[in-house]
Amino acid sequence: MKAAAYLGHGRLETVTLDAEPPGPGELQIAVAYCGLCGTDLHIAHGDMDARVRTPLVFGHETSGTVAAIGAGVQGWSIGDPLTVMPLIWDGTCAACLAGHQHICQNLVFVGIDSPGGLQQRWNVPSSIAVPLPPGLDLRIAALVEPVAVAVHDVRRSELQIGDRAVVLGGGPIGVLIATVAREAGADVLVAEVDATRRGRIAALGFRVVDPGSEDLDRLVERWTGGVGADVVFEVSGAAAAARSTTALAKVRGTIVVVAIHAAPREIDLQRVFWRELRLLGTRVYQRSDFDRAVELLMAGPIPAEALISAVVPLAETASAIEELSAGRAMKILVDVAGEARA
Amino acid sequence: MKAAAYLGHGRLETVTLDAEPPGPGELQIAVAYCGLCGTDLHIAHGDMDARVRTPLVFGHETSGTVAAIGAGVQGWSIGDPLTVMPLIWDGTCAACLAGHQHICQNLVFVGIDSPGGLQQRWNVPSSIAVPLPPGLDLRIAALVEPVAVAVHDVRRSELQIGDRAVVLGGGPIGVLIATVAREAGADVLVAEVDATRRGRIAALGFRVVDPGSEDLDRLVERWTGGVGADVVFEVSGAAAAARSTTALAKVRGTIVVVAIHAAPREIDLQRVFWRELRLLGTRVYQRSDFDRAVELLMAGPIPAEALISAVVPLAETASAIEELSAGRAMKILVDVAGEARA
Repeated sequence: MKAAAYLGHGRLETVTLDAEPPGPGELQIAVAYCGLCGTDLHIAHGDMDARVRTPLVFGHETSGTVAAIGAGVQGWSIGDPLTVMPLIWDGTCAACLAGHQHICQNLVFVGIDSPGGLQQRWNVPSSIAVPLPPGLDLRIAALVEPVAVAVHDVRRSELQIGDRAVVLGGGPIGVLIATVAREAGADVLVAEVDATRRGRIAALGFRVVDPGSEDLDRLVERWTGGVGADVVFEVSGAAAAARSTTALAKVRGTIVVVAIHAAPREIDLQRVFWRELRLLGTRVYQRSDFDRAVELLMAGPIPAEALISAVVPLAETASAIEELSAGRAMKILVDVAGEARA
Repeated sequence: MKAAAYLGHGRLETVTLDAEPPGPGELQIAVAYCGLCGTDLHIAHGDMDARVRTPLVFGHETSGTVAAIGAGVQGWSIGDPLTVMPLIWDGTCAACLAGHQHICQNLVFVGIDSPGGLQQRWNVPSSIAVPLPPGLDLRIAALVEPVAVAVHDVRRSELQIGDRAVVLGGGPIGVLIATVAREAGADVLVAEVDATRRGRIAALGFRVVDPGSEDLDRLVERWTGGVGADVVFEVSGAAAAARSTTALAKVRGTIVVVAIHAAPREIDLQRVFWRELRLLGTRVYQRSDFDRAVELLMAGPIPAEALISAVVPLAETASAIEELSAGRAMKILVDVAGEARA
């Protein structure tokens, strides 16, 4: 079978591997599609060499069907459509025992810390397989994982109907957060520095501004009648955006830290104090977020077609990563099945 | 009557003023004691000249008795003991309408934005007068306001029985937070750089460490069995302490920003994300916090005598402020009634 593997030192290759049969408790997945995300870019560029063990078959935004069933696995049939929630927790640490398994202190992230979905036959513990409804296009279903991120972020923000939400950063996750927040009844403003992205976001019906050329503070103040935003999602990872969050939020407003910030950021704690702000970190998702993501993709509000910039064969994974790194695309899916499907 | 007034440009004087009768809806208070706090130091040193209108009779940690009753005021009798919750809100802004009157967008803080308690006859709207139980010593009752701050901070943290809490900064508010948290069932560790303060805190039965000479991260890690603290209260105002909070808190732990940080601080947002931390600003108090503070001062757990370093006459207000600025005292009360009492 074919797979895309990261070999270390910034080298990526399409390789041929022997497909292993699923072990006890495992499902073997015939992977259909696998989306590429920011973390995959970091892996491919060598930024995570200290964490990953090479060669690593990466990829964690997957869809596919059951190809084989390991001993002891119940409730699945060959051909069932599925996705994978790529988290394996130890179940015994303090975080797990407190009900926060998704941020287990010893979390294994499948596709980073163990083999991922950029391979045609992928064995996973059946416990992390998530069934898909029969009517859901497997291309669209490859978006379940990033949609689940957005659902988790919005859920954790405790956003309410009628709230005004600011999303800082209009990449795929920013657009998905904006969409999930709008679906939850919020009025949403997206701030994005890239003009091409702003055009795409405006076409989806969102209020969109360029924080580089407009005074976002004053604009949000006017938009909210001097009150401030109920929720601010920081999705850009930029220092200036992190710094701006406290000026945008209302008294007792919520700031959600979605992006990964490589260095400590300056935060106006005086404003945090003065307005009794709440700043929340959010990471990955819980099973309920995954289930809700499937529902939203079935129901229609997620602009899946607008988000999927391209679908490329497995052999073009490396060039797709370069395309994403250059900021020329939103979401690129790898057609993992490829000729196997055709 | 005598009063202590800030005249601007860092000048403080004891002055003689005419006592005015209370207006409609007001109570006239015969002030007994008034505590001095960090904000008073900022006023006296001229740091708040842009905000205060001079001459300003300051002071907001008060106790006294009713001396006269204005027209239309019900439910009070001459001689009733009372304290003042020094907040006047507009009742109409978005924060007030959302139930957060205590952090009204146009809040008047009595003793900063309007005349305070360092005067022998003080007229206040009866709406901000808080009755005291007859058995409570008026010296002790001057601590209701700072205790209410601590109650508010602990309440907002949602600290639970059995939690482990770290308090960064062992001044009066830090010690009060530690006490209220312990009373709520938490195990508390206080970090304080000053050796004299550490001695006082240890004498109150708290675990206390010097973050300057000890590795606080490792110590908290050992103390919590590798889990991290449930709640971290940042009460020091120091950049290094703010920076350390994210390393001390457990997965889904809470960081409470109590101190006023004059400049933006570096915060490790990567850790906020990774552990899904929650960072909360807290400011002043709500009426329920004031009521709980009175209860706690009646019930006994607040180490009032240990906190009150000295009681000085009104004429010594300026030197008391210098004593506090030098870090040589915890809480100093001004005996406002003075010879009027004797």
